[in-house]
Amino acid sequence: MTPVPAAAGGNTKSAVGGSRLGPKGFQAAGIACGIKEARGAKDLALIYSECQAQVAGLFTKNRVKAAPVLATRQRVRRGMCRALIVNSGNANACTGHKGLQAAEAMAQLTAHALDIPGQQVLVSSTGVIGRPLPMERIEQGIPSLVARLSYDGFPDAAEAIMTTDTHPKIITERVRAHGDEITIFGMAKGAGMIRPQLATMLAFIMTDAQVDAALLSTLLRDGVCSTFHRITIDGDTSTNDMLLLMANGAASTRAIHPKDSRFPPFKEALFRVMDHLARAIVKDGEGRTKVVEICVRGAKNSRAAERLAFRVAHSPLVKTAFFGEDPNWGRIMAAMGDAGIAFDPQRVSIFFDAVMAVEHGVSVPGASEEKTRKVLQQEEFTVTIDLHAGSAQASVLTTDLSSDYVKINASYHT
Amino acid sequence: MTPVPAAAGGNTKSAVGGSRLGPKGFQAAGIACGIKEARGAKDLALIYSECQAQVAGLFTKNRVKAAPVLATRQRVRRGMCRALIVNSGNANACTGHKGLQAAEAMAQLTAHALDIPGQQVLVSSTGVIGRPLPMERIEQGIPSLVARLSYDGFPDAAEAIMTTDTHPKIITERVRAHGDEITIFGMAKGAGMIRPQLATMLAFIMTDAQVDAALLSTLLRDGVCSTFHRITIDGDTSTNDMLLLMANGAASTRAIHPKDSRFPPFKEALFRVMDHLARAIVKDGEGRTKVVEICVRGAKNSRAAERLAFRVAHSPLVKTAFFGEDPNWGRIMAAMGDAGIAFDPQRVSIFFDAVMAVEHGVSVPGASEEKTRKVLQQEEFTVTIDLHAGSAQASVLTTDLSSDYVKINASYHT
Repeated sequence: MTPVPAAAGGNTKSAVGGSRLGPKGFQAAGIACGIKEARGAKDLALIYSECQAQVAGLFTKNRVKAAPVLATRQRVRRGMCRALIVNSGNANACTGHKGLQAAEAMAQLTAHALDIPGQQVLVSSTGVIGRPLPMERIEQGIPSLVARLSYDGFPDAAEAIMTTDTHPKIITERVRAHGDEITIFGMAKGAGMIRPQLATMLAFIMTDAQVDAALLSTLLRDGVCSTFHRITIDGDTSTNDMLLLMANGAASTRAIHPKDSRFPPFKEALFRVMDHLARAIVKDGEGRTKVVEICVRGAKNSRAAERLAFRVAHSPLVKTAFFGEDPNWGRIMAAMGDAGIAFDPQRVSIFFDAVMAVEHGVSVPGASEEKTRKVLQQEEFTVTIDLHAGSAQASVLTTDLSSDYVKINASYHT
Repeated sequence: MTPVPAAAGGNTKSAVGGSRLGPKGFQAAGIACGIKEARGAKDLALIYSECQAQVAGLFTKNRVKAAPVLATRQRVRRGMCRALIVNSGNANACTGHKGLQAAEAMAQLTAHALDIPGQQVLVSSTGVIGRPLPMERIEQGIPSLVARLSYDGFPDAAEAIMTTDTHPKIITERVRAHGDEITIFGMAKGAGMIRPQLATMLAFIMTDAQVDAALLSTLLRDGVCSTFHRITIDGDTSTNDMLLLMANGAASTRAIHPKDSRFPPFKEALFRVMDHLARAIVKDGEGRTKVVEICVRGAKNSRAAERLAFRVAHSPLVKTAFFGEDPNWGRIMAAMGDAGIAFDPQRVSIFFDAVMAVEHGVSVPGASEEKTRKVLQQEEFTVTIDLHAGSAQASVLTTDLSSDYVKINASYHT
């Protein structure tokens, strides 16, 4: 794999590998092109790899898939890409044939400006559903977007993919192994509509390791199980979710294989990146005042544990009780009973952090409500539910349901 | 069936059949016995039938069942009862063996005061989960509750079963057929935790028709499909739901059978009572500002229509958009896509009342957003989703998700 020169017009501030944030051979940019109403709000992002990158992706399971999801999924199947263009402010979803044409045009215009094949440009969108993409603005924006590509453009790109996020979410991990210094960089957006199947969540991860697309895909599927698929804010799943992992090999002397000694540290670093981004999304949950881990243990199997944990994490009554800092464990029991999973309520213990509130399905005699209340007054805490029925467990990270969640979602366009 | 004299100490204001609200031979009372914190708030209700009544019931499907649900379900299986005692302010759920003892004691104390067998007294509770029932207060209250029994006690009883309800929910229907004047009276409570499987919803229906328990049960199961099982507020299902239907025959010269000409008008009147109570519950939904009917039509089968309608009705994003009076149909499409039901997004039409906003899965060209907004500014409106894939349909009645919902549920005990 031979690094190629920086993009035409690239405002490169350092040589390949000289970036503070991004992996070697990747450049980024983010600009405001006028899709968002707020003047000057960044809404167009570009990631560019100076050399051919292997790519894997996971996409929304929502049956209503946005045009860019369809366009990018088809491209990712080939396993290779050079660039990714993302807009915020408009989801290009439920836009019919014209929407597909717009997603295709976005890729082709970017390819033309970068002088690469159109099939190597991935496309992603997030924002309001059902409105035509303002292609004129995007077309006008692309030349200046390409002109601003640089090794330091990652924060701008991360900002340009935000919708109701209050801040950009980025992380860089570095792994040293056998002389290679590998960088993994991740950026994500998403503040509502988060839940398993990758709700309106965009996450893009780039690395300069050399890894083939099939292995990238395996890593992605493994990694989401304990990260992106274990977070939930409101149980709504979007039309536009996308998680992409690109590897351009610019810092690797040879390809990483699963039997390679470099594989475990690489995998761990990648999972740390995924974990960080998933947690960052929950922590920036719309209107949230709490981050709560729901841990179900002692289950017969992990499916049961997971379903119970999600049912509790999705219950509006449980979530409003968290917001009210109220250790209302009865709502937790009621939500569990409604999960379609068999368990014996009389064996259940419930802990708020280390404080046991329920044992054998009833209030712990003499348990101090003051102590449990203190736990709930914290910004982050864990609810542990022990079923005493087996050894499987599952954890889900969620938020409370606040008045601000309602305000944000009642006023966010259309 | 021979009517028996009014209960000992019954404060009967009129002869059997003279009540304005209740069916013949039924008496009711509601008092404050100190379970609720608010001084003077009614929290103990009694329904008494002067003669043996046939009874049928439906109970929560939540795996965590409150003690009174267990006690009453077992009694209802026998098909006969004479009385029903209900407390609000405490659910007697997740209270273990002591809770079962308390439910049993409530029945026995009532039976003793009324001089009837304990197995003929049904018990129901609603309120906070996980707290021991204050049996002393209930025991002290029962004599004065019995003393206040009267033909005019139904409004008091309806008030005494309320929790976060803003008003009592009662209805009387009368049917004349072949000389019999039959009365059907219903009362219900429930303002949150409402959804299919009878979330924290208590509904008690009494009639002076003569109908056997098996037929009552069939009627109940039929009736809920288009009434109580088609309403949803927040998707949470409680530990205490109960729907009871009692028939004491005090106004019937002979039993009603399905082939009887009196059966259709009786059934229709009963379903009107159920429909009224179900709608009353939604209209009093916690913090709701809107009542919205979600109608999915043109589906391949009714299960698909129902799942899609419930998925839309449960989506926090759709519900907050209703609160914001925002015709954000993209959220409706996204929720549908997440229902696990196959459909072609490009065939979908969406109407807000009569205004078509979406056709072939995209915005209707030239559709006036002003018109759709006007529909959403109404207190009640219908969202019709046509899949153009078949002839099945289903409707669900729901509410918006408001800031007040969050406030109410964040502060409602424990």
